[in-house]
Amino acid sequence: MNRREFLSAAASVGAAGAARESLAALAHGTQSGAPAVAAQKLDIHTHHYTQGFFEKIRQNGGHFSFTTDPNGRPIITYDGARFFGIQPPMTDVSKRLEDMDRVGINVAVVSLSTPNVFFADAKGQPDVAKMMNDAYADLIAKNPKRFKAFASIPMDAPDAALAELHRALNDLKLNGVILLSNIRGAALTDPRYRPFFQEANRMKVCIFLHPMIPVASEPFKEYVLGPIIGFPFDTTLAVARMCFDGMLKDFPDIKWIIGHAGGAVPFLMERMDSGYRDFAETKAKIDQLPSFYLKRLYYDTVTFNPYNLHLLRDEVGADHMLMGSDYPHLLGSIDKAVSSIEALAIPAAEKQRIFGGNALSILNNV
Amino acid sequence: MNRREFLSAAASVGAAGAARESLAALAHGTQSGAPAVAAQKLDIHTHHYTQGFFEKIRQNGGHFSFTTDPNGRPIITYDGARFFGIQPPMTDVSKRLEDMDRVGINVAVVSLSTPNVFFADAKGQPDVAKMMNDAYADLIAKNPKRFKAFASIPMDAPDAALAELHRALNDLKLNGVILLSNIRGAALTDPRYRPFFQEANRMKVCIFLHPMIPVASEPFKEYVLGPIIGFPFDTTLAVARMCFDGMLKDFPDIKWIIGHAGGAVPFLMERMDSGYRDFAETKAKIDQLPSFYLKRLYYDTVTFNPYNLHLLRDEVGADHMLMGSDYPHLLGSIDKAVSSIEALAIPAAEKQRIFGGNALSILNNV
Amino acid sequence: MNRREFLSAAASVGAAGAARESLAALAHGTQSGAPAVAAQKLDIHTHHYTQGFFEKIRQNGGHFSFTTDPNGRPIITYDGARFFGIQPPMTDVSKRLEDMDRVGINVAVVSLSTPNVFFADAKGQPDVAKMMNDAYADLIAKNPKRFKAFASIPMDAPDAALAELHRALNDLKLNGVILLSNIRGAALTDPRYRPFFQEANRMKVCIFLHPMIPVASEPFKEYVLGPIIGFPFDTTLAVARMCFDGMLKDFPDIKWIIGHAGGAVPFLMERMDSGYRDFAETKAKIDQLPSFYLKRLYYDTVTFNPYNLHLLRDEVGADHMLMGSDYPHLLGSIDKAVSSIEALAIPAAEKQRIFGGNALSILNNV
Amino acid sequence: MNRREFLSAAASVGAAGAARESLAALAHGTQSGAPAVAAQKLDIHTHHYTQGFFEKIRQNGGHFSFTTDPNGRPIITYDGARFFGIQPPMTDVSKRLEDMDRVGINVAVVSLSTPNVFFADAKGQPDVAKMMNDAYADLIAKNPKRFKAFASIPMDAPDAALAELHRALNDLKLNGVILLSNIRGAALTDPRYRPFFQEANRMKVCIFLHPMIPVASEPFKEYVLGPIIGFPFDTTLAVARMCFDGMLKDFPDIKWIIGHAGGAVPFLMERMDSGYRDFAETKAKIDQLPSFYLKRLYYDTVTFNPYNLHLLRDEVGADHMLMGSDYPHLLGSIDKAVSSIEALAIPAAEKQRIFGGNALSILNNV
Repeated sequence: MNRREFLSAAASVGAAGAARESLAALAHGTQSGAPAVAAQKLDIHTHHYTQGFFEKIRQNGGHFSFTTDPNGRPIITYDGARFFGIQPPMTDVSKRLEDMDRVGINVAVVSLSTPNVFFADAKGQPDVAKMMNDAYADLIAKNPKRFKAFASIPMDAPDAALAELHRALNDLKLNGVILLSNIRGAALTDPRYRPFFQEANRMKVCIFLHPMIPVASEPFKEYVLGPIIGFPFDTTLAVARMCFDGMLKDFPDIKWIIGHAGGAVPFLMERMDSGYRDFAETKAKIDQLPSFYLKRLYYDTVTFNPYNLHLLRDEVGADHMLMGSDYPHLLGSIDKAVSSIEALAIPAAEKQRIFGGNALSILNNV
Repeated sequence: MNRREFLSAAASVGAAGAARESLAALAHGTQSGAPAVAAQKLDIHTHHYTQGFFEKIRQNGGHFSFTTDPNGRPIITYDGARFFGIQPPMTDVSKRLEDMDRVGINVAVVSLSTPNVFFADAKGQPDVAKMMNDAYADLIAKNPKRFKAFASIPMDAPDAALAELHRALNDLKLNGVILLSNIRGAALTDPRYRPFFQEANRMKVCIFLHPMIPVASEPFKEYVLGPIIGFPFDTTLAVARMCFDGMLKDFPDIKWIIGHAGGAVPFLMERMDSGYRDFAETKAKIDQLPSFYLKRLYYDTVTFNPYNLHLLRDEVGADHMLMGSDYPHLLGSIDKAVSSIEALAIPAAEKQRIFGGNALSILNNV
Repeated sequence: MNRREFLSAAASVGAAGAARESLAALAHGTQSGAPAVAAQKLDIHTHHYTQGFFEKIRQNGGHFSFTTDPNGRPIITYDGARFFGIQPPMTDVSKRLEDMDRVGINVAVVSLSTPNVFFADAKGQPDVAKMMNDAYADLIAKNPKRFKAFASIPMDAPDAALAELHRALNDLKLNGVILLSNIRGAALTDPRYRPFFQEANRMKVCIFLHPMIPVASEPFKEYVLGPIIGFPFDTTLAVARMCFDGMLKDFPDIKWIIGHAGGAVPFLMERMDSGYRDFAETKAKIDQLPSFYLKRLYYDTVTFNPYNLHLLRDEVGADHMLMGSDYPHLLGSIDKAVSSIEALAIPAAEKQRIFGGNALSILNNV
Repeated sequence: MNRREFLSAAASVGAAGAARESLAALAHGTQSGAPAVAAQKLDIHTHHYTQGFFEKIRQNGGHFSFTTDPNGRPIITYDGARFFGIQPPMTDVSKRLEDMDRVGINVAVVSLSTPNVFFADAKGQPDVAKMMNDAYADLIAKNPKRFKAFASIPMDAPDAALAELHRALNDLKLNGVILLSNIRGAALTDPRYRPFFQEANRMKVCIFLHPMIPVASEPFKEYVLGPIIGFPFDTTLAVARMCFDGMLKDFPDIKWIIGHAGGAVPFLMERMDSGYRDFAETKAKIDQLPSFYLKRLYYDTVTFNPYNLHLLRDEVGADHMLMGSDYPHLLGSIDKAVSSIEALAIPAAEKQRIFGGNALSILNNV
């Protein structure tokens, strides 16, 4: 499905907008007597792997170890703390398509989750990134109507990072980039990454910000608190730093999708604004309230909770929400991805934007 | 302000939409570091009169009489029931502009309230309509940036109705039409009005449906219940009949703005749907749930109540809400028109559509 | 189930309140480690009839006629307009209990719907009321845990009205009274009914206000608009008159339950307040904003619509909402009665009050 | 104001509840014609210090240093990260009373914020706690109608902790206890603290959980991120650990008030539930979904954000929300404490519970 096909579908069901010319066209469709046609559904938070990827992690060693959980299922630990459980559909495309069909998802925008390529050091990252981006391009070539993908970037190898960004978006035609909330412990605001973001801004890249376990992981070891609590914390910290550090101000054309409904960003937005009002230290690099920048970001719906989804809709708007599932990871749910949005008592046009319209408006190469 | 100027303003503040091409342009503006520019505000429910109009009513007599209320203010009664209190700003343009400036309203889309031209019979209506439409065109000519207008139509004179529709929209360049919820007691679904609606549909006319007191006005005589309760009832009845009668289905290109937040339509929408599900009689002329048609209508915000405004936003969407004041009538409020929307805890982009973006997308000749 | 049993159940699930002594007790239950126990569910808007009742209407004639709808089902018309469709469970107790069990309703608070006893004149009403109230007392005696009932009152026979009120509540131990929104065309504010309301206030009676078709029924003849639109209109008009006439002020101890989520009262509450602010005529008999009185009323949930239910919760509070089904009438739904509340994203304690806690706090003889 | 006085006020304004006996009394008040009487307002998150306290910190040294911020105002740092700015009203009672009067707060429930007594080691804590609890008792004695207080507890000195708990609540009649989200780096779930919680549970103590800067404070050094982001993180982590560790299950009679609207607990509640469903490790010590325990906690309103306050009301209920200001700290606001609740479009009875009714139902010695 390309943009034109989507709009043709969307036009029948009433996705509206402020731009008059489009509205005129849409209104015609909206007001025809024809029954509504279902809009396309894209899942922008879903993870696909290859056996070769897991093999690379195993060979690499370091912080990461393979072991099993209390139920005997294979998991990966980071310094002993569980943060990744391996599920069969992670590498099984036909099982994935079956699940997508069951819940009515048209397109999976796949990406490489934690640890992404960052289990490897600067030297090793480029090869892993190339291998995975090629695998994604191959997946799309075989199922062009069912898959899109975010590229992985070897951030610690500056030249390779830029080269892979260009190759992935310009040659492989992937649809954006995935980054983690910290890069081997470094903040995204680290000056060494600035040239990458400068170029991403120039290219108007869509970047999916995915959580990583916090650098100080010790407090999260028990009760799987790493993924449950540490992930949203690290996401929030990464966004807060980019905001106060001026990155969101300086690179306004990057389209950021923040995973897991923003971690805790939406709930702490007001506190960041209060910080800006009350502390001179926070005004060094920005000249608007943090919420000014934070409301321009996009947030996935991987929370599945009506209270959170309503908060997002009221605070940042349905135009800034995108459906995600975190499939096939634990804590994720491809069923709830769709049903949690369907269940909201909000206008159908807003649901359609969350299901797919917004994604198609910010992804690259659509 | 024309459409282009509005969009240029809106682009800076983030009014988003589903149409990709526009979004691309808008997104650029949205994400620039520049502070937000306030969008334009249009008041689509506000009434302007001339002394000549009141004189015509007085000469006409019939159901209508001039008298005074308990506070000594001039009022008009219908069969003895109060339904119109005369206020100085009704004919005082400079007082009106002063009030608009005070609350930040850029454009008043004026119209002729009850009894509109319908105090006169079929023979008398065309002259009153011409007189008033000319007066409105004159008002706009003198203040092109501050006024737009809905034309009055002599509905009971079929040929004159069509002629005045063409003259008002094509020659005078007025911005739509105002109709009452009943026309001298006749329903808008009366077959005699069908040719008018057929042509209005062809011309994609924006029609502002304004309440009239119910035909059986006796139960509303006490406590000013005519305007308080009778008005929203008659609006609701008119819309329900147009819906079940198939008019909304057959004439999908008319852009209806329903006054006073739809009367009670939004609160009774589900009951109309239940009626469609349960009674064969309701399916004779439509083939979708009533809500399918009712959610395509537009609703003004002349309720000022956060509960009602939230219900509208959740049920029909901010894209289908338009700011109104009912100025300078009692029960109306030009202050609350703006403040009631400002006070909503919803995204700024949605407020901007309610303030003006939606109006500019459906008014004629903008 | 009596009040004590309910509270003992409710204590386990956390129905909270402002009264400290009760809270202390409740908190203990709330915070025990025990899993939540489901609270009791009462349906306060559900109708039970006897064959004898339909026979009385048939014998009486007058405005009411028996005929069939387009699907061949038996219906009653009022001056030719459909307003009552006869369904088997109306007289079939075992079918009703089966449906209650299916959806988890513990207690049906049955009542006699339109035309209630008011198809008969003042002379005939007392006998019909006695017959039906006895039938209800009998139904409860046979199923004491599953039924409660509102008594019918022969309002047009003043002495009999008071006598039946005393008999029904004091002897038969029925749980309140049902009244229609108009009594054979007379408003409830008619002075002739004042002695009844005076005594009802003294006795702190719970009165269920049920809609009747408007006196001027002509505009509602098509598309079953009588029940769909006329019912909520007449409810709204009745409440508005009682409010402005001072009845709600003068008789504050009557506990009013307004059927069908208040008709359109919740949506028009602000307009009534605006009327009070703007018109001297509205202040003759009350000295608070209408909403002051209207928020003290109770509203059933026979709308099933999440938008309306949220509006009610936000405007009058979950403490003033009571579950109803309008079973087994068309437009009603015993399934939606429960599921529409279950589906709300609100605290469980509020749902329990809507399901039953509020009813038990205002019904008589519990 | 004691409990009786509050109820007498609350009865006039309609705070309702599930307990029938109280409801009967309340309903009478609610439905009387008398205009509403404003309920009492208690601020449960507000901090009072003495010069002696600051002197103790200065003498103690260690992690804490006194310095000034970029504006020259005195601040305290923790390992170099700013986390405490000294404001004049922190020690000025008459300025505080003036501010309370200005916004209409009747009672300040004062407490000792971070670092509380925990800048001192186990040996030093008891004396600091005694000194401050005595100072609070003295403050209350001088202004019995305007102050209540949470006691500080020397948690690292087990015997002294129990002794001070008894002295503070039984002798000084303080109204609960304040604890920090970590105690000199130790989790509240540390087994050494269990005897204290066992006794607190037996005594049904109200414990105000106040944030502390996370143990690993390094990532929060820039942009005052410690208080802005670190505080809510540490609160969330502390609550999550108490939940999964079974403390909330095992000690159900402790009434926990979680500061800053729960940190990020309300937004991450669903993710904790998903964790419980998906990971065996999380079920070791609890047998209900985390939300079962988390919804029994109380949350202050020190977020001031309508989106967050609505989320709280929808998820945990107005019965579990308590007004706080964090006065006179930066990030806090005594004005917004009241105005943010007043501005919510929710029933007045719910506001009154948030303003004070809930506090009086869980505080000790009221």
